[in-house]
Amino acid sequence: MKNIILSLLALSAVIGADAQEALWGGQQIISPEVGSDGRVTFRFLAPAADKVEVTGDFLPTQRIDTPYGTFDAPGVAAMTRSEQGIWEYTSEPLPSELYNYSVIVDGLRTTDPNNVYLVRDIASLTNIFIVGGERGDMYSVRDVAHGTVSRCWYASPKLGMERRLTVYTPAGYETSDKRYPVLYLLHGMGGDEEAWIALGRTAQIMDNLIASGRAEEMIVVMTNGNADQQAAPGESKEGLYKPTTQLPHTMEGSFEQSFPDVIAFIDGNYRTVAAKEARAIAGLSMGGFHSLHISRTMPDTFDYVGLFSAAVMPRDNAPAFYDDIDATLEQQRDNGLKLYWIACGNTDFLWQTNLDFCKKLDRMGFPYTFRESDGGHIWRNWRIYLSEFAPQLFK
Amino acid sequence: MKNIILSLLALSAVIGADAQEALWGGQQIISPEVGSDGRVTFRFLAPAADKVEVTGDFLPTQRIDTPYGTFDAPGVAAMTRSEQGIWEYTSEPLPSELYNYSVIVDGLRTTDPNNVYLVRDIASLTNIFIVGGERGDMYSVRDVAHGTVSRCWYASPKLGMERRLTVYTPAGYETSDKRYPVLYLLHGMGGDEEAWIALGRTAQIMDNLIASGRAEEMIVVMTNGNADQQAAPGESKEGLYKPTTQLPHTMEGSFEQSFPDVIAFIDGNYRTVAAKEARAIAGLSMGGFHSLHISRTMPDTFDYVGLFSAAVMPRDNAPAFYDDIDATLEQQRDNGLKLYWIACGNTDFLWQTNLDFCKKLDRMGFPYTFRESDGGHIWRNWRIYLSEFAPQLFK
Repeated sequence: MKNIILSLLALSAVIGADAQEALWGGQQIISPEVGSDGRVTFRFLAPAADKVEVTGDFLPTQRIDTPYGTFDAPGVAAMTRSEQGIWEYTSEPLPSELYNYSVIVDGLRTTDPNNVYLVRDIASLTNIFIVGGERGDMYSVRDVAHGTVSRCWYASPKLGMERRLTVYTPAGYETSDKRYPVLYLLHGMGGDEEAWIALGRTAQIMDNLIASGRAEEMIVVMTNGNADQQAAPGESKEGLYKPTTQLPHTMEGSFEQSFPDVIAFIDGNYRTVAAKEARAIAGLSMGGFHSLHISRTMPDTFDYVGLFSAAVMPRDNAPAFYDDIDATLEQQRDNGLKLYWIACGNTDFLWQTNLDFCKKLDRMGFPYTFRESDGGHIWRNWRIYLSEFAPQLFK
Repeated sequence: MKNIILSLLALSAVIGADAQEALWGGQQIISPEVGSDGRVTFRFLAPAADKVEVTGDFLPTQRIDTPYGTFDAPGVAAMTRSEQGIWEYTSEPLPSELYNYSVIVDGLRTTDPNNVYLVRDIASLTNIFIVGGERGDMYSVRDVAHGTVSRCWYASPKLGMERRLTVYTPAGYETSDKRYPVLYLLHGMGGDEEAWIALGRTAQIMDNLIASGRAEEMIVVMTNGNADQQAAPGESKEGLYKPTTQLPHTMEGSFEQSFPDVIAFIDGNYRTVAAKEARAIAGLSMGGFHSLHISRTMPDTFDYVGLFSAAVMPRDNAPAFYDDIDATLEQQRDNGLKLYWIACGNTDFLWQTNLDFCKKLDRMGFPYTFRESDGGHIWRNWRIYLSEFAPQLFK
């Protein structure tokens, strides 16, 4: 009788899967398989398909011409069909990195059912994999002490709503009496408070940097920069709606001006060092824009500012919040700060914008550091920038 | 110039998607669409497919005969092709509930690319949707105060490793000075510390029960019950491996005997009421088994025990930990407790096991409450059980 129960228990798990597999095509496939030489093999069961391809940022980009200009898009590689109806593709040896990919079956883009690791970027889900080595290891969960990641809600009187944010506290926070400096880390257009933790691998990067002594212990606060939104899609009372790429109500000063609400919540509820020398703010693209304009209008608040592939200047006829850019930057310069770090990829469509902004800072005598990287407006760069920016903070 | 930058910024998001859509088949499809009458329409673009079906727990189950017995599996419905190559299916009006589904394209099971909301159950990803109304609303993020959900790591000297767990603290925890009771909530075989929060909708259920005054404010701790495992797949140093349905190293006493490590971490790091009358333990399937055996061997620790579709008895030749079941249950009975709540679906393969266990408790004069439900060994029931169990705690 005991054996029957245990057998049933064990079988219930197996049979649940077996029954599904009998129904749905019987997949016990390893995909992707990362070889020790960095070659990665993708496998996809599709006996009835005429053509199966894999696409992702591990393949050389292709240039796409559009009426708006020429853009980089991920490459596409044909997979080869075996007799069992399994399609397969093995890559060239890949440098250590976190990559994403999708599968295209007879023209239809889908995810790999043998890989449960997915990230959402705006409205698209893609699978991810990591090729180990220096950079891939930085983005991996390793055998080190781990911080805590919390999703909290804070009150924003300025925006008139409760809003969600993500907080990383370093290993040992719960059991120490110490106070910690804070990095505020802001997402780009289409992102939200999940972007830096999911696509940016912030928890892994911070765990690994801190464990190896390269970065100081710090709290990292990942906000939602879309002023109309309480929370990421699916995490608010709006329900399980389809995210869109529509321009959110933002970059018109409202999120920036509500930022004191974020700082008040964090300083009020975490053991922070509530002082300029213990605060950093950084962001990618729109989040870089926010970081620029928040820090210049709160010129005694942040000793460290990071602009990652940042948008810089507001639109024409922007609200009065953007009227005194030069004067507030001069005030920020005069107050002094320890690091103003501007990073951009040299094929980014915002490259020239960032060069122009540097010239403006040069004219002002505003000290900054410029970090040129390869590549464009992509998460690979933003993970690299975070990995390089965080070690420069709070020393 | 400013206009150009903003346009580019806006377009970069749109073009990123457009370029992908030009490459991958141009989908601007709403799926699923939940009608006000509870009918749900699924849409799937697949011009080249011969047959597209939808399957999920919103369809009547089908019985499947296997060498191990007869089991329920989700039903399958054929979708109909339109001239544009979009396949469509509209359901009957569905009762309010959270449902899951997948799409089957020419025999290949896949997810719906127009729905970014997925849950992982062991190694399978399925899409979810909610039909509003009493039960669906309970599982939805509503316009109420929200608790915090944290992923933390605790030291388990007994298991010799750092391990991950998920903690829900109710709204107001951060700003109050109060101490809170704790519900320990345990997953089933194949699950981990993500199961109750993702599949069980614990944060939404607790937020909604507490906001409506039906449940007391409490902390909910969701552990990882697989003694070999530090953390859920992808969240440990094991990397991004493929989860399997293999029987984990568990149900042999090790996790149960390490449970004091969990309680020590929670009582040491959260503002708890560290007392029997303020502790509950509950779990589903294997987690019910764990709850039974933890609570009987720590008979002065929990005033509330919940067994949801629980496995009950250990295997033959089980370790000595399981030797004194009757004596320890008698001790637990003699110490007294406020609620011993056993819930099971009447088509569950563990139904008879649970009836037998009730008879055993009857013979012992061990007071308990039995809750029969429809249905089998499924998440739908476990969400219902949590929604009914939590309001009975700490009154």
